[in-house]
Amino acid sequence: MSFQNPVFIPGPTNMPEAVRQACYMPTIDHRSSLFGEILHPVLEGVQRVLKSDSAHIFIFPSTGTGGWETALSNCLSPGDKVLAARNGMFSHRWIDMCQRHKLDVTVVETPWGHGLPADRYEEILKADKDHEIKVVLATHNETATGVKSDIAAVRRALDAANHPAMLFVDGVSSIGSMDFRFDEWGVDVAVTGSQKGFMLPAGLAIVGFSDKAMKATETATLPRTFFDVADMQKGYDNNAFPYTPPVGLMNGLRLSLKLLEDEGLENVFARHTRIATGVRHAVKAWGLELCAASPEVYSDTVSAIKTPEGFNATDIVTRAADTYGMAFGVGLGEVAGKVFRIGHLGSLTDAMMLSGLGVAEMVMVDLGLDIKLGSGVAAAQEFYRRGV
Amino acid sequence: MSFQNPVFIPGPTNMPEAVRQACYMPTIDHRSSLFGEILHPVLEGVQRVLKSDSAHIFIFPSTGTGGWETALSNCLSPGDKVLAARNGMFSHRWIDMCQRHKLDVTVVETPWGHGLPADRYEEILKADKDHEIKVVLATHNETATGVKSDIAAVRRALDAANHPAMLFVDGVSSIGSMDFRFDEWGVDVAVTGSQKGFMLPAGLAIVGFSDKAMKATETATLPRTFFDVADMQKGYDNNAFPYTPPVGLMNGLRLSLKLLEDEGLENVFARHTRIATGVRHAVKAWGLELCAASPEVYSDTVSAIKTPEGFNATDIVTRAADTYGMAFGVGLGEVAGKVFRIGHLGSLTDAMMLSGLGVAEMVMVDLGLDIKLGSGVAAAQEFYRRGV
Amino acid sequence: MSFQNPVFIPGPTNMPEAVRQACYMPTIDHRSSLFGEILHPVLEGVQRVLKSDSAHIFIFPSTGTGGWETALSNCLSPGDKVLAARNGMFSHRWIDMCQRHKLDVTVVETPWGHGLPADRYEEILKADKDHEIKVVLATHNETATGVKSDIAAVRRALDAANHPAMLFVDGVSSIGSMDFRFDEWGVDVAVTGSQKGFMLPAGLAIVGFSDKAMKATETATLPRTFFDVADMQKGYDNNAFPYTPPVGLMNGLRLSLKLLEDEGLENVFARHTRIATGVRHAVKAWGLELCAASPEVYSDTVSAIKTPEGFNATDIVTRAADTYGMAFGVGLGEVAGKVFRIGHLGSLTDAMMLSGLGVAEMVMVDLGLDIKLGSGVAAAQEFYRRGV
Amino acid sequence: MSFQNPVFIPGPTNMPEAVRQACYMPTIDHRSSLFGEILHPVLEGVQRVLKSDSAHIFIFPSTGTGGWETALSNCLSPGDKVLAARNGMFSHRWIDMCQRHKLDVTVVETPWGHGLPADRYEEILKADKDHEIKVVLATHNETATGVKSDIAAVRRALDAANHPAMLFVDGVSSIGSMDFRFDEWGVDVAVTGSQKGFMLPAGLAIVGFSDKAMKATETATLPRTFFDVADMQKGYDNNAFPYTPPVGLMNGLRLSLKLLEDEGLENVFARHTRIATGVRHAVKAWGLELCAASPEVYSDTVSAIKTPEGFNATDIVTRAADTYGMAFGVGLGEVAGKVFRIGHLGSLTDAMMLSGLGVAEMVMVDLGLDIKLGSGVAAAQEFYRRGV
Repeated sequence: MSFQNPVFIPGPTNMPEAVRQACYMPTIDHRSSLFGEILHPVLEGVQRVLKSDSAHIFIFPSTGTGGWETALSNCLSPGDKVLAARNGMFSHRWIDMCQRHKLDVTVVETPWGHGLPADRYEEILKADKDHEIKVVLATHNETATGVKSDIAAVRRALDAANHPAMLFVDGVSSIGSMDFRFDEWGVDVAVTGSQKGFMLPAGLAIVGFSDKAMKATETATLPRTFFDVADMQKGYDNNAFPYTPPVGLMNGLRLSLKLLEDEGLENVFARHTRIATGVRHAVKAWGLELCAASPEVYSDTVSAIKTPEGFNATDIVTRAADTYGMAFGVGLGEVAGKVFRIGHLGSLTDAMMLSGLGVAEMVMVDLGLDIKLGSGVAAAQEFYRRGV
Repeated sequence: MSFQNPVFIPGPTNMPEAVRQACYMPTIDHRSSLFGEILHPVLEGVQRVLKSDSAHIFIFPSTGTGGWETALSNCLSPGDKVLAARNGMFSHRWIDMCQRHKLDVTVVETPWGHGLPADRYEEILKADKDHEIKVVLATHNETATGVKSDIAAVRRALDAANHPAMLFVDGVSSIGSMDFRFDEWGVDVAVTGSQKGFMLPAGLAIVGFSDKAMKATETATLPRTFFDVADMQKGYDNNAFPYTPPVGLMNGLRLSLKLLEDEGLENVFARHTRIATGVRHAVKAWGLELCAASPEVYSDTVSAIKTPEGFNATDIVTRAADTYGMAFGVGLGEVAGKVFRIGHLGSLTDAMMLSGLGVAEMVMVDLGLDIKLGSGVAAAQEFYRRGV
Repeated sequence: MSFQNPVFIPGPTNMPEAVRQACYMPTIDHRSSLFGEILHPVLEGVQRVLKSDSAHIFIFPSTGTGGWETALSNCLSPGDKVLAARNGMFSHRWIDMCQRHKLDVTVVETPWGHGLPADRYEEILKADKDHEIKVVLATHNETATGVKSDIAAVRRALDAANHPAMLFVDGVSSIGSMDFRFDEWGVDVAVTGSQKGFMLPAGLAIVGFSDKAMKATETATLPRTFFDVADMQKGYDNNAFPYTPPVGLMNGLRLSLKLLEDEGLENVFARHTRIATGVRHAVKAWGLELCAASPEVYSDTVSAIKTPEGFNATDIVTRAADTYGMAFGVGLGEVAGKVFRIGHLGSLTDAMMLSGLGVAEMVMVDLGLDIKLGSGVAAAQEFYRRGV
Repeated sequence: MSFQNPVFIPGPTNMPEAVRQACYMPTIDHRSSLFGEILHPVLEGVQRVLKSDSAHIFIFPSTGTGGWETALSNCLSPGDKVLAARNGMFSHRWIDMCQRHKLDVTVVETPWGHGLPADRYEEILKADKDHEIKVVLATHNETATGVKSDIAAVRRALDAANHPAMLFVDGVSSIGSMDFRFDEWGVDVAVTGSQKGFMLPAGLAIVGFSDKAMKATETATLPRTFFDVADMQKGYDNNAFPYTPPVGLMNGLRLSLKLLEDEGLENVFARHTRIATGVRHAVKAWGLELCAASPEVYSDTVSAIKTPEGFNATDIVTRAADTYGMAFGVGLGEVAGKVFRIGHLGSLTDAMMLSGLGVAEMVMVDLGLDIKLGSGVAAAQEFYRRGV
């Protein structure tokens, strides 16, 4: 483990060293006021990143998967109806979790590479006259396919159907890297983790609940203790957690929020768009295609790149790691072996991205793909370079 | 936050700097074989600390509370009967979790300061002719009262009743610091966290399941996804987690296991006993008493010290923090304001302990308690010092 | 190397972790403007610590010994006369360096444990009618004996003799921990290092030159290149060094200066006085005596403690290290085996000091000295504790 | 200071994080045996890197410049004759140091970009019938021009002249990265620093003395104290330094030596050759030329690249830093503004180098140079990539 090269997996991301150092602070008494000085700035900062004035922020020592479970178990009861689309591995897993928690999911099967079908949502919601659907699930950015969905469109579908269902959004690989508008989009629960846009190690589930979602917790009967938001809120009211808090990661989050806001959220998003666009130019120069079906769903945090028929895309990831010490992401589920993924989120510069593209090219040429060395790099450089 | 003085809270403990550095390693690809090089030594090392040849070890990005939930939700179904004793805040909370997960708990109320009543367990188990009790809960070390219970005695109670109930043990503040014998005691689920004997930040729930407990997961119907041990096992079989693993904390755990084994587990336990005994000599020299009712239940990881009637023990903790920059533990629940706690576990030396005792004395004298400065320190020194 | 206990050597001191982290920053281009952002705040901060408005500050990748050589080789020519007193190992070494650089030193032999004899200086200076003496050396704080000298008195001796000699002061173990007044005392060259009051690793020689000393460099003919202050000044004028600068240590110094000024220099000095006074109370309670002959020369950064006739004081240091993992200082030179030293400077709290005193007591009792355990700790506690 | 991108200055190099952490270890007692456990492995490891069985290794808290001064002041007396060639900024500075130390230097002016003229050395040495020349200086790798000289040829010149002069070699930017043969080449003093091949912060002068050089110290009369190797040797014999040692940097050096030897010295050299060759392919693809006049003098640690007439090469360095956050080296002295330098030594991978080449291309295109984006990267990739 030499740690010399940056990683290009779609999270956990490259982490600023200062953030890691903030994480590995020595022990403090988490029952003292010192912890409040970490907790409250973090809750407020996350709220700003969600672009919400009123979201109730909760942070658990867990991961995004725990965030999903927090959303479901606090707001729903066994048998409740849920509407969801499956267009990738992560939307699939959230649906699976619903089913294991005895929820009744209407699944809209959607081609991998496509965004969420807001129009189908609208039809189904309109057909649900009795408003039995309690929650609509939406994966903002499908990490498996590099597909960004239009959450505002999902909100419009709910509104068009005049349907009271709550909107739960998985923003694990978008929040902090791509624009997210909790209030404007009428999100009821947003879920993310520490290891993507926040540039931290995995270990935190970060969720925002609307007032409506909080209200729902009062009647929801799915069992919960570890992920109980009411217990957590009682803790926060006393500068505490209901159990031992992950103080170091929270301290790291305080710093990463400061870094994001010092750079400026809109600048952070623009940087992600710039770096991602360069990657897409490179893909085009290589003569390859994205898994994402059309430009409007191109993700700014991860690109899943299709390799030619008969070629095992996973070989690229293996060889990059073994021969050049560089990490890319493999294809998952339905697209395993068919795509490899370049993560381009978190703490990243144009220069770092060029090294990723350069290595990807060497690997592909090594493996016999018909790629011109330097071609993708040049396409990205042309986009990244700035006039004098 | 100056971090100059050691902390004396009963966890999170003082952490070796090398362990903290191991925790916040740069990002690696958690889907690569590199992660397996961290995962498997950790699972094997934890097994050795539990003194088990066969326990199935699972590690979740969570805390000890999540470990409790892992135990319950994987092995039990709503309505299942559980036997438990309440002798402190942490046994209380586990009972509360059972009830919130719709389990039917028989609670043996036990005076705080006393150990688990193995004899009462035996009576109840013998009376349970139909073997409706599925699980017996046992808190090995009550962190709130500084009370160690005799788990071997609980096992004998089960055996005397010839009762098939599983034995779930909370070893959060004992494992890694005090002797724990998973196999010998016939433990079915052992639960701990990263932030006590393992000298790490909070953030890991660490559990061991017996074959019998694994068998129980096949029929248990409490909903679970994040804490599902079968999913986790499937992950481990592929050097992976079912979601993003807490790589850094696992890497830190690998190092802390090495440190524990380099020192020698029995030496680690002896060191805890020595430091704790010195603290108890100091308490006696101060003319104070422990919350723990008798020597056989004295904990080697935390001492809860009773202050005189009419004195608010929490003032000691507050003044130590505000005036001398040192952290002790407050009393919790039933003994709030009546005791203060000195944690003496994890990465600790005799010299560090003397500074804790010295500050505690200054604080108590400042606050008007009739304590002789240096008296407790001298009593501990007499015990700690070694002949030439 | 467990690093759990604080060290009590008279430097290098305990270092704040944040300072160490600032030191181990990644590489920057030391020829870029980034380095100027470190360099200039450091030069200005050191000037403030010296209490000077006009001292020319130079920092070399070296140690205090290199600082001595900087002073001599930049301001003097072979054969120049120097006046110095020898009252400990460090004044001895500076005299030795003068002689090796072909300077003609008049040495006033002074009992170890006594301060500099300003009255003898005055006599000698008055007798030097031709002003052949070019420099008077003065060791502000003799680290070997724990003796602080009165530099203002040396200045008065020079003034009383109306003598133009320059005053060179070794402030290695005083500057940053004890009051130092470059301008008020008419110091011409002050010398210190990074590893004492500045709480950094060894590796920097830090010197201040008066205008008069700068003028002297123009005619001084001792050879010099590495330690040439004119080259260094030319470098600084371009945000650079004449060779590769120790960027990390400079960055650490920037932070340590900030920490000192955030605490307040006078508060830092008062803290050193308080901790040192507690140590002296402990020594008295042990029935031992300081090497320092009288209260007005007691050092606030290091105490050299005499042990009884026939006892080898070095055994204390050896046993403390081997048995209790704690570092004290041995006696040097003339007082080797006769004293052991407790360093109490740099990053230190009352609580840390208590652990040092507590271990010292255990060691002395182990070795058969007639010391009452807890006696010194109690005496220090009585002094350290604060009323409510 | 974001530290995201690698640096491409010709030292200090990129540093492995583990090495930095080893450098800033907490304080230990440098007079205890712990320090010996760092010191002796370091001295032995440096000897192996120099490929010497007998060199006396000395390490000073200083820089390479201090190493030059160590060589001169320990082995020579005022007026001694020295033979040297000036073919770049660093050979120039060593000559200048000789002159300031009153040595009588015969300077062979050599075009910048050329190697040392061993044939001219031979002529001069043969003409020196009385063997007045005491030392021949040789700069192994001129960091200013990217020129490697043939030290074996210099040795042959000495031998051909049957001349007893000592051979002093500046290996600052070669040792640890390029092959160096102290014994085989008959080197008498080798000089290097910590911040190049050893991948550490600046702060150590590292020198090796032959027995002959050690003998010369006995009669040499240049004044020295800080850099006195006899004092240093006496210190080492007691596991100590004559003053406070730079413990952390020595500890870092212990680790960097381990990393170099774990990789294998010959592998380290081969890696430097491979990366450097890729850079040279890129330079050719850009249509530019190296300052180094011919392939046999191409340096494997730094390339100085000439830019077209009328173009200010320094603009490349400025723009790379300001616009893309990447550090290259400026031209120095005679070639200031005419070349920019790419450092490719120390902790470096092919992938990192590609990012450096990629950014250099963007900058040159931005500034109007007629460079094809991706051309140099492609040339390097073609060389770096490996067949399957």
